[in-house]
Amino acid sequence: MSFERVAIVGLGLIGGSIGLAVREHLPGVTTRGYDLDPAVRRRAAERRLADQICETAEEAAANADLVILCVPVGAMGAAARAVLPALKADAVVSDVGSSKQAIGEALSAALPDHAVIPAHPVAGTEDSGPDAGFATLFHRRWCIVTPPPDASPEQVAALVEFWEGLGAMVDTMDPQHHDRVLAVTSHIPHLIAYTIVGTASDLEEVTRGEVIKYSAGGFRDFTRIAASDPTMWRDVFLHNREAVLEMLDRFLTDLAMMREAIRSSDGETMFELFSRTREVRRSIVEMGQDDARPDFGRKHNGDS
Amino acid sequence: MSFERVAIVGLGLIGGSIGLAVREHLPGVTTRGYDLDPAVRRRAAERRLADQICETAEEAAANADLVILCVPVGAMGAAARAVLPALKADAVVSDVGSSKQAIGEALSAALPDHAVIPAHPVAGTEDSGPDAGFATLFHRRWCIVTPPPDASPEQVAALVEFWEGLGAMVDTMDPQHHDRVLAVTSHIPHLIAYTIVGTASDLEEVTRGEVIKYSAGGFRDFTRIAASDPTMWRDVFLHNREAVLEMLDRFLTDLAMMREAIRSSDGETMFELFSRTREVRRSIVEMGQDDARPDFGRKHNGDS
Repeated sequence: MSFERVAIVGLGLIGGSIGLAVREHLPGVTTRGYDLDPAVRRRAAERRLADQICETAEEAAANADLVILCVPVGAMGAAARAVLPALKADAVVSDVGSSKQAIGEALSAALPDHAVIPAHPVAGTEDSGPDAGFATLFHRRWCIVTPPPDASPEQVAALVEFWEGLGAMVDTMDPQHHDRVLAVTSHIPHLIAYTIVGTASDLEEVTRGEVIKYSAGGFRDFTRIAASDPTMWRDVFLHNREAVLEMLDRFLTDLAMMREAIRSSDGETMFELFSRTREVRRSIVEMGQDDARPDFGRKHNGDS
Repeated sequence: MSFERVAIVGLGLIGGSIGLAVREHLPGVTTRGYDLDPAVRRRAAERRLADQICETAEEAAANADLVILCVPVGAMGAAARAVLPALKADAVVSDVGSSKQAIGEALSAALPDHAVIPAHPVAGTEDSGPDAGFATLFHRRWCIVTPPPDASPEQVAALVEFWEGLGAMVDTMDPQHHDRVLAVTSHIPHLIAYTIVGTASDLEEVTRGEVIKYSAGGFRDFTRIAASDPTMWRDVFLHNREAVLEMLDRFLTDLAMMREAIRSSDGETMFELFSRTREVRRSIVEMGQDDARPDFGRKHNGDS
C-alpha cells in the first residue's frame, strides 16, 4: 500500500514543507491542508502549500489515507478530535511532534479505533508560520517513526516510504527512547540557548547593545535557536519533562565540573574536554548532517 | 601617523587573516610574519599570509611600526619577550586576544619601555591554523581596542585606522569592561557548547551515533563552536576567570529557574522567556551581525 491522499493539519514550517515536498517529489499524491488560523489559510493558499486549502479540519481529512497533524505538541489531542468525524476507517493518523510518548498517548486516547503511527522529522529552521516552509527541508534529514506494538507492518512501511519519498532517511524506535535522544540532541540545546540569551539580555553591567554588537564571538549562534517558535517549545518542555530533566541534570553536573576547573585554574581538564569535542563535529559533517564549510557557510558578514 | 610596516607574530586563523586583509585593503603597507611552528611557516609562505615569512620573531619585528601578537592568550608574554630585542623604540605592540586585562598586564610587564595597545577583533570561525584565514574575516565585525590610560592618542588613532582599514568597526573601552562583555558574548557560549557536546558524548542510554544522526534538532549548532581551538580556549578561561565565573553563575541561576518551571509544568514562565529572546535575534540580524537567512543560510542538507 501507499498513500494517495494526504491531509496536512497545521500549515506552519513543517506542515507547509510537507505540502511543498509532496508536490515536488510525489507526483501521484494529492494534498489537502487546513490551519486553525484563517490568516495562515489565506497565506497557505497563496503559496500553494497544499493542492487544496480547506475551511475545516474535517474537510481536509475527508477521504485522506494519511492525516499528518503538524501542530504544537499540546494541541495534538484537539487536532485529532477535530479530524475524527471525517476519518476513513482505514486512514493512518501520524504527526511531526518533537516528543513521542505523550503524543502517542494523546492520539491513541483521541482515536481509539484508528491506526496511529507517530513520527518526528528531525529538521527545521528558526522560522515559523506559513512563509517558512520549503520543499527540501527534509532532504538527508532523519525522520524517526515510533509505531505502537500493535501497528500494522504494511501501514508502518507505507509511512516510511512516504517520508523516504520526501528525501528523508527513516529510523524506527520506541517512543521512550526517542524522547531521551531528542532531549539531548534538541530539547536541552534549545533550553540552554533560550536561557543564555535571556541571561545576556537581563544584565545590568553589559548593555543589550553591547551584547548585540559583539555577538559574533559565539553568542549569535545561540540567538538563532532562541528565535524558534515559543508555543511549540513551551509544549515540548511540558510534554517531555522527565527526559529533559534527566538530561539537564547530566549537563548541570558536567558544567559544575567545568566551573570547578576554571575556579581552580585546571587547564588540563579544560584541554581534555575541548580536544575531544572536535571529533563529534567532524562526525556530524562526515555523516552529511551539517554544512562542511566554516561558520556553516554563512554569507560572510554581509558580503555577497 | 599610520603604520607602514606590520609584523604578525602567530599565523593561525587571525594572524593569517590580518596578513591577507592587509594585502587586499592596505596597499601601502608591508607585512612580515612569523610562527613558532616551522610547518605553519611553510604553509604560511605557500599561502602568502604575509609579504615575507621570517625564521625568527626578531626578524619579523625588526623595523616594524606595528607588531601584532596573534598567539594564544597564555603565550602573549613569551611572544612579547621574543620580539623585544628587535623592537624599534617607537613601535606599537598590539594583540588580538580574547581577554584584555590579563594580556595588558602581561604585555606591559614584558615591554615596560614600549607602547602597548591591546585589541580584540571579535571575529572568527571554528577553524584554526594557517589554512583557516581569509581576507574578509573582519568585514563589518567589531574590533575592541583597550588603550591603557597613558597611551598616546596618535598611536591609538593609528591602530583604530588600521583596523578600520581591514573593514572592521572599532570601539574602545577599558579592559575590565571588555572582559565582562566578552564573558557573556563569547566565553560562556563556548563553555556551554563544549560542555553539552561532552555530556552528549558520554551518555550510555543514547549512543554517539544517535547523537550525530539526530543532531539537526539543534545540537549540531553547538558542535561547531565546540570544534574551536582547544589551546586558545583553555587560555581564555585561565585568563578571564573572574568575569567568566561571574557570568556563569548568572546563567546557572537562570537555568535553575527554567529547570523549576519545567519540573512544575509552569508553561507561562517558559513562554515569557521564549518570546522575548526572539527580539535579540532580530536586533543582531538588523545590525548586520549575522546572516539574515534561516539556518544561517546553510547550504541545505547537502543540496547544491
